[in-house]
Amino acid sequence: MTSLIEALGTRRVLQPNGALPQAATALDVELPLQPYEIEVDVETLALDSTSFRQLSEAAGGDPAAIAEAIMAIVTERGKMHNPVTGSGGILTGTIRAVGEDYPDPPPIGARVVPLASLTLTPLKLESVGEIDPGSPHIPVSGTAFLPSPVPWTLYPEGVSFEAALAALDVCNAASQTRELIDDRTRTVLVLGGGHAGLLAMAAARDTLSRGTRVVLIDASERICRRASDLELCDIALQADLRDAVGSLQSLEQAGVPRADLTIVVVNATDCEAASLLLTADHGDVLFFSMATSFTKAALGSEGVASPARMIVGSGYSPDRGAYALELITRDERLQAALAEH
Amino acid sequence: MTSLIEALGTRRVLQPNGALPQAATALDVELPLQPYEIEVDVETLALDSTSFRQLSEAAGGDPAAIAEAIMAIVTERGKMHNPVTGSGGILTGTIRAVGEDYPDPPPIGARVVPLASLTLTPLKLESVGEIDPGSPHIPVSGTAFLPSPVPWTLYPEGVSFEAALAALDVCNAASQTRELIDDRTRTVLVLGGGHAGLLAMAAARDTLSRGTRVVLIDASERICRRASDLELCDIALQADLRDAVGSLQSLEQAGVPRADLTIVVVNATDCEAASLLLTADHGDVLFFSMATSFTKAALGSEGVASPARMIVGSGYSPDRGAYALELITRDERLQAALAEH
Repeated sequence: MTSLIEALGTRRVLQPNGALPQAATALDVELPLQPYEIEVDVETLALDSTSFRQLSEAAGGDPAAIAEAIMAIVTERGKMHNPVTGSGGILTGTIRAVGEDYPDPPPIGARVVPLASLTLTPLKLESVGEIDPGSPHIPVSGTAFLPSPVPWTLYPEGVSFEAALAALDVCNAASQTRELIDDRTRTVLVLGGGHAGLLAMAAARDTLSRGTRVVLIDASERICRRASDLELCDIALQADLRDAVGSLQSLEQAGVPRADLTIVVVNATDCEAASLLLTADHGDVLFFSMATSFTKAALGSEGVASPARMIVGSGYSPDRGAYALELITRDERLQAALAEH
Repeated sequence: MTSLIEALGTRRVLQPNGALPQAATALDVELPLQPYEIEVDVETLALDSTSFRQLSEAAGGDPAAIAEAIMAIVTERGKMHNPVTGSGGILTGTIRAVGEDYPDPPPIGARVVPLASLTLTPLKLESVGEIDPGSPHIPVSGTAFLPSPVPWTLYPEGVSFEAALAALDVCNAASQTRELIDDRTRTVLVLGGGHAGLLAMAAARDTLSRGTRVVLIDASERICRRASDLELCDIALQADLRDAVGSLQSLEQAGVPRADLTIVVVNATDCEAASLLLTADHGDVLFFSMATSFTKAALGSEGVASPARMIVGSGYSPDRGAYALELITRDERLQAALAEH
């Protein structure tokens, strides 16, 4: 019987003492497969864009130097946890072996995508393949060990590789948006029209009843037009959300009431006040953007005298990204948009 | 007729353009009293504990240096908004003047406590008085301007000054804990036994039905003993919450299940993973501590595979601190504890 603590992968934590894999500075990848783990033959590391940009810049764009840097990080830390950006990404591979206590394991040889950040995934690399300086998807040969609490999904058929990874990377934007919508939800406001925003809008469209409204606010005219062209929103407003007052004025000019549900997926900082100001007093704000500041949100509610409920977007995917994959499988144009960088 | 935007105090924002007072880097305190404002003759700044701790440490505990730092911040920013911690606190004073459009104003000369963070309150200081290095309550002489959406309460009678300020500063810890408890809540876990923790425990005690459990975890044996002596918790566990695994082991050894509701009011950093690990999958985590990191919470849920709902504690007090004041008025020992530092 594996304890929760073991199952979280603590046995592979070399330091610091008592840390969980995410907080660990080094993981032990020499330890053999544990009974509560699956072993993955790793094919691709899909680095998060922040990490890949940093590595490319540090290497002057030289593919060989990027490869060396990746190998060096993984060798030192036992995970692809970029020490500069603190971020990771996800991986894909095939199941090589299954521990005897692993519940409902995927079949040996199955191609899977673990829904866990590389910042907490024990990883060993034999080699790094040919790197395309324009793509954060790194071909590698290596081994990863996934403890049973880490969700995984079978590699989705009939979906492009780029779109699948992009959707799985932010899949909770879809499932958490769906969870927060109920039959009293009339207006859903999505702040930021990037990958997560596209999925949030698609989820709102899919979940909302008739006579409701999906509104996008983004600083980019191109992003606004894309969402309108994809018919993912009823209204797309171009506004700088760092300007809370101007954003509310744009909403008022468009004749849109303050939202029942606001999904914050904008990558810019200092949008917390606008997020609250644009939300009705009875509403919910889901902060999904990693650019969110906790104190600015907590104090922002005071700044705009808002009793709206503020929820922290979660990185954990109980649905294993199923809903996000369903949405992009249903809508080829959405899928194509997610494949764009 | 004052618009919502004006009423939020935007006219006093010097920069950045379009920002609300909380996000502003500088507020205009030379502007005369506006029709939708009240002017307060400020007596005391009750700094939040995170801010006061940072100022004390930076000043090596020297009262004069702490006073200088406070004066420097207020002079530069037009508010007591600690640039390092991002946090503030509250103030107390008497009403000096009332704008003609201010709805239901307090009488001139009334002693009030505005329930707004110092991070968004336009403040001008003539002087900072004698600082007690052990107390975050700073005697000052100055002027504050409060726009109408800012809740305020008349200074409570029959409650000690220290206790009232301490309670009002963190009053939402009480009201939000009460809101999050329902008839399925069996175990409430409070992380951190300081002022906010005491109020959260008192609120849980007051709200929970029979056969339920209030558990405190704090690193300090003294704090644990105090809570037990006050009969605010059933179990008090001494543990370092930065050690997530060790904290869960302490909970398991005490025979306590993972909590239905966890109130995070610990003013140390890196406790996000433990907060989630100690909470049941169906549970709620209320992050009320200003030491919370948004990204550590969002990624932490992945690191501990937790689907628990994470809520950002709000600084806005629709009940004007009434519930917190009610709790300390009812319990003299709790009131005395809140008066301690």
